[in-house]
Amino acid sequence: MSGNSIGKLFTVTTFGESHGIALGATVDGCPPGLEISEADLQGDLDRRKPGTSRHTTQRREADQVEILSGVFEGKTTGTPIGLLIKNTDQRSKDYANIAETYRPGHADYVYDHKYGFRDYRGGGRSSARETAMRVAAGGIAKKYLKQQYGIEIRGYLSQLGPIKVETIDWAAMDNSEFFCPDASKEAELVAYMDALRKQGNSIGAKVNVMASNVPPGLGEPIFDRLDAELARALMSINAVKGVEIGDGFDCVNSKGTDFRDEMTPEGFLSNHAGGILGGISSGQDIVASIALKPTSSLHLPGRSINRQGEAIEVVTKGRHDPCVGIRATPIAEAMMAIVLMDHMLRHRAQNYDVQSTLPVLR
Amino acid sequence: MSGNSIGKLFTVTTFGESHGIALGATVDGCPPGLEISEADLQGDLDRRKPGTSRHTTQRREADQVEILSGVFEGKTTGTPIGLLIKNTDQRSKDYANIAETYRPGHADYVYDHKYGFRDYRGGGRSSARETAMRVAAGGIAKKYLKQQYGIEIRGYLSQLGPIKVETIDWAAMDNSEFFCPDASKEAELVAYMDALRKQGNSIGAKVNVMASNVPPGLGEPIFDRLDAELARALMSINAVKGVEIGDGFDCVNSKGTDFRDEMTPEGFLSNHAGGILGGISSGQDIVASIALKPTSSLHLPGRSINRQGEAIEVVTKGRHDPCVGIRATPIAEAMMAIVLMDHMLRHRAQNYDVQSTLPVLR
Amino acid sequence: MSGNSIGKLFTVTTFGESHGIALGATVDGCPPGLEISEADLQGDLDRRKPGTSRHTTQRREADQVEILSGVFEGKTTGTPIGLLIKNTDQRSKDYANIAETYRPGHADYVYDHKYGFRDYRGGGRSSARETAMRVAAGGIAKKYLKQQYGIEIRGYLSQLGPIKVETIDWAAMDNSEFFCPDASKEAELVAYMDALRKQGNSIGAKVNVMASNVPPGLGEPIFDRLDAELARALMSINAVKGVEIGDGFDCVNSKGTDFRDEMTPEGFLSNHAGGILGGISSGQDIVASIALKPTSSLHLPGRSINRQGEAIEVVTKGRHDPCVGIRATPIAEAMMAIVLMDHMLRHRAQNYDVQSTLPVLR
Amino acid sequence: MSGNSIGKLFTVTTFGESHGIALGATVDGCPPGLEISEADLQGDLDRRKPGTSRHTTQRREADQVEILSGVFEGKTTGTPIGLLIKNTDQRSKDYANIAETYRPGHADYVYDHKYGFRDYRGGGRSSARETAMRVAAGGIAKKYLKQQYGIEIRGYLSQLGPIKVETIDWAAMDNSEFFCPDASKEAELVAYMDALRKQGNSIGAKVNVMASNVPPGLGEPIFDRLDAELARALMSINAVKGVEIGDGFDCVNSKGTDFRDEMTPEGFLSNHAGGILGGISSGQDIVASIALKPTSSLHLPGRSINRQGEAIEVVTKGRHDPCVGIRATPIAEAMMAIVLMDHMLRHRAQNYDVQSTLPVLR
Repeated sequence: MSGNSIGKLFTVTTFGESHGIALGATVDGCPPGLEISEADLQGDLDRRKPGTSRHTTQRREADQVEILSGVFEGKTTGTPIGLLIKNTDQRSKDYANIAETYRPGHADYVYDHKYGFRDYRGGGRSSARETAMRVAAGGIAKKYLKQQYGIEIRGYLSQLGPIKVETIDWAAMDNSEFFCPDASKEAELVAYMDALRKQGNSIGAKVNVMASNVPPGLGEPIFDRLDAELARALMSINAVKGVEIGDGFDCVNSKGTDFRDEMTPEGFLSNHAGGILGGISSGQDIVASIALKPTSSLHLPGRSINRQGEAIEVVTKGRHDPCVGIRATPIAEAMMAIVLMDHMLRHRAQNYDVQSTLPVLR
Repeated sequence: MSGNSIGKLFTVTTFGESHGIALGATVDGCPPGLEISEADLQGDLDRRKPGTSRHTTQRREADQVEILSGVFEGKTTGTPIGLLIKNTDQRSKDYANIAETYRPGHADYVYDHKYGFRDYRGGGRSSARETAMRVAAGGIAKKYLKQQYGIEIRGYLSQLGPIKVETIDWAAMDNSEFFCPDASKEAELVAYMDALRKQGNSIGAKVNVMASNVPPGLGEPIFDRLDAELARALMSINAVKGVEIGDGFDCVNSKGTDFRDEMTPEGFLSNHAGGILGGISSGQDIVASIALKPTSSLHLPGRSINRQGEAIEVVTKGRHDPCVGIRATPIAEAMMAIVLMDHMLRHRAQNYDVQSTLPVLR
Repeated sequence: MSGNSIGKLFTVTTFGESHGIALGATVDGCPPGLEISEADLQGDLDRRKPGTSRHTTQRREADQVEILSGVFEGKTTGTPIGLLIKNTDQRSKDYANIAETYRPGHADYVYDHKYGFRDYRGGGRSSARETAMRVAAGGIAKKYLKQQYGIEIRGYLSQLGPIKVETIDWAAMDNSEFFCPDASKEAELVAYMDALRKQGNSIGAKVNVMASNVPPGLGEPIFDRLDAELARALMSINAVKGVEIGDGFDCVNSKGTDFRDEMTPEGFLSNHAGGILGGISSGQDIVASIALKPTSSLHLPGRSINRQGEAIEVVTKGRHDPCVGIRATPIAEAMMAIVLMDHMLRHRAQNYDVQSTLPVLR
Repeated sequence: MSGNSIGKLFTVTTFGESHGIALGATVDGCPPGLEISEADLQGDLDRRKPGTSRHTTQRREADQVEILSGVFEGKTTGTPIGLLIKNTDQRSKDYANIAETYRPGHADYVYDHKYGFRDYRGGGRSSARETAMRVAAGGIAKKYLKQQYGIEIRGYLSQLGPIKVETIDWAAMDNSEFFCPDASKEAELVAYMDALRKQGNSIGAKVNVMASNVPPGLGEPIFDRLDAELARALMSINAVKGVEIGDGFDCVNSKGTDFRDEMTPEGFLSNHAGGILGGISSGQDIVASIALKPTSSLHLPGRSINRQGEAIEVVTKGRHDPCVGIRATPIAEAMMAIVLMDHMLRHRAQNYDVQSTLPVLR
């Protein structure tokens, strides 16, 4: 398995290239009896879908998912669920000119080194187009976790360039073109993005994602700690350069008295830890943040080399997102859902007999 | 496998508790023919060892590693390498008083929820004592990578509370009590830690770790990207709350023109990406940072609950590190070594036939 | 991963039900640069295909495979290869009558116990229809092994009921309706099967599969021995009840002097071991045999129970194979190819540096 | 992981060589709360132990197991269980003479090819001495399955050379020097083995192993079928050349009407399938058989080659078993226990919510 699967018991395996025939995923290990249909998955796919505003790539993809197996009479059977999304707006010819050159900041150069050649059409497998399947697969996990355990997973844009979100209002987020939960920042974001697009430049972003109602006990010490697995899953999203759990890097200049989340019979007094202690969920909200780099596809020329090692200048002409962080929110939610689902199953396996009478704090 | 193994081809499995009989590791998948002895591993174990300065825990452990198998006539045979470290300074009685209580910020509460009960002696399996085996196992990876590929893996303390390192001088680091590569900060660190210890408080820290001479091509898209696997491995270290690759969270407010690392025939012009593009090593130095929270074991009282859910006050009496980040450097190096080693083997497997004639840039 | 994947580095994941929309497979880990097209896979699919003679099921399926990803400009790229076969001759209504009953010898009863309900259309996921994807995926492994290493994998029917094959003539096999390599038995087989079909009964079979030109060294002691992995792969084929390597059960009454394969500078003097010693390939032909039970779908009534536990009588009306062993040959070849391919990659990973100057015996 | 681990959730990883310092195992994933001590494991270790009768190797090993971790106050904690057995009767000098030669039928030649060199002391890692750790680890699984589910796992010698067992009497087996459950064959076996030993030859054997009270539902289609995983686990035992489930190879000449196990409200009418249908346990006894080849270590000279490829004659002088099948019974039981335990945990994970009201037949 060359890296295209995630999850030990709830396993998602994906295939497909940006400008290939189709994208696919196999979801293996889903418990039987879950009511699911394409409609349950389409909502998040539409949230991730390109071309819905002028602030994202203009590629038009319906991203219509088909369930090919594993569901019978409206319910999961316990056997693998095959998912398929056909690509409809391939324009591979746009990319012929980059076949011999390496776009700086892209995976072109390293794919060539690794595999000896590459599918240069829009980045092929390295394109973030692949994340559509994660969103589809994650939708299954989301629904199960919600229905069986009341777990709610939600993300939002918390920073875009210099603009930081200050309040979280989920309704505002649903109406935002940027997954921004702070309505007071929306106009500022629009203006910033319009200016950026005119420049032909791109910008980074920070996305937060959280899960509530997670029971205490999920996560497997030592190496499969819940935070370690979340870090891996979130870092595997295209363009992510950093992952934090709870306070993250702010802990570097924190004192123990400030950071440790004290407990009372009424609950935890704070959540600096982000809902994970010793790699195991504590019952508090699980909180993670990711940093997404500015895309390297720019209308502004950059220095690079070609396959022969000669100096060239690159200008990216194709369609692309000036801020890949914008559409990252449903992807981050999906990855968190997949990890939590996997650990829920793992926990049930080993600790099936544990009948805890301990107090549950939030 | 309940989470105590890491690596797909170069696999490290550990066991052992803080105050149990022994710690052990099995290293499976090491190539045959590597000259190795206990002495090769002891150096890093001594760097991680407690009790070597007044700034770390006063527990005295020799941390003497034994190789029980997998090495014959001084060379690895290709079969699993059994490693053992006997605990010599257990004082489990120190911990009887916490058997019924939950130390805030520790894993006590969540282990109880997960497993129905716990080994309360010094945190049992959740103790950072477990990391000794990672260092031993990582030493094997380090030696192989150095010898076969010239790969050098080194870490250092880059920040402790408010004190930030400004220059990197490896010789200074070797002489530092804090793995601090900036001799001009040493006195400041001593003073800070002495004051902290008097207060009975603790502080967070940031550790950087880097690998040089890594060939381009390591890392498996999609989910097993090199950065994703590093994030998981580093986040699995006790007390880590954040992981960055390259510029990390600084990318949030970066423009594409600033962030993309341009290439020339002479090499890359910058390394914002931290040596990883599209999840694959680029040949540049691989650079990661981790944030370590302040330990929650404090001489200062904190509010908590006991197993019955009643409010209590906790004061930690045992021996502990006021800054767990100090001893984290060799652990972070070991985890990076294990991940790189694993991906080297994975890369060789699939891409054995690839004969790249492409230019290699640094 | 709930059991629908095989292989550690060359990984095949399948989905799909007998009467669902489609069958699919994802092949992950294939080395880059292999020339491959649908035509390379179709040959073996056609060999396995139902409805080609009166001795097999009359279900008509084109079994036309599509490659959806992982191949660019005619070559594998190193990224996952998505394969799809659409079902064209579903007749799920045929099976409505078995929705509430358990066919004896079938998986109906156990699926219901395991998952709480089941897809009763033709056995759903438990149908041997799933093996089409194995043949498609195995075709990729076959081609790589042949091209890079000269490895040839071939199987044949060695026994059907009381009729035992006595000579192996590959050309005869290619012309046989039964994968029978002994032309002198063909008429006997035809007569036997015609009589059997008239009775409405079924019969078991034995299939042998062998690989030649396998280099010595493949297989990972201890648990992933090559023979252990072959046993698992072959036993996972529907209806298989036994697996032998080399002489198999004949060794029970063999003496050491007879069984050990002596070596001379000119080669091994015998191959009782079937090409595997200590779980590692010896360079001799790898030889395995499998026993396939008679299908339980009969026109003759059998006693059973329904979902309510009441006694019923079952007669299977649908289309089925009177001897599932007949079409098993290409499936067994595919499974052997997948295992050898996986172990080739694993061997290259760990033992990349081994430069053996030892004599190679055949 | 180079093959020294088995089990997905209940994972056993072993290390150690025949004449190394120690053998070890790590058992990861055991549910918490199981009462266990060394004494629980020693019984089966003593059954497997060499040197207890004149019919087995005369090497004297106490095979005293130590539990190093994972058990606290007499109960498993849910964290990994470290097991250690020190070798006490190494005589590696006995083997200096085989360092340059290949014993026919042994793994010497293939290890050399695979790894470039080998630990020649008694076969090193390829020795069946390694199976001691399987028995120790399997003991944990056995106890859990017995206690939580009433599952009983028992094996016996069913054939040795030409001598076939005809009746099964567990009490007779406990008193037998051969794990023979048919007291009427004991004298015959003694005579046969005495004669064989005088000749300096060896003989094959067949061992049966069965599990009763296994609930229906264990096993994961498609590739991780219960029978497939049993086949792999049993084939991984040294010297095994064949595995059968239920009737095994007898099905080749069976008709469907004879083979399918009909069901009535009172239970199954037969158990040709060996308790597994479609890869899933049916609730009937799980029955497997293995064929063990005659050991190749003989006092009778055999032709072979040395490392230079020159013809030599080999006579094995060391201590060895004239019938390795004799001591295989507890090993086969252990492997079956490990597989069932793993699948019990896997089943609980995915199908936790399934509340079956279906009739359970035996």
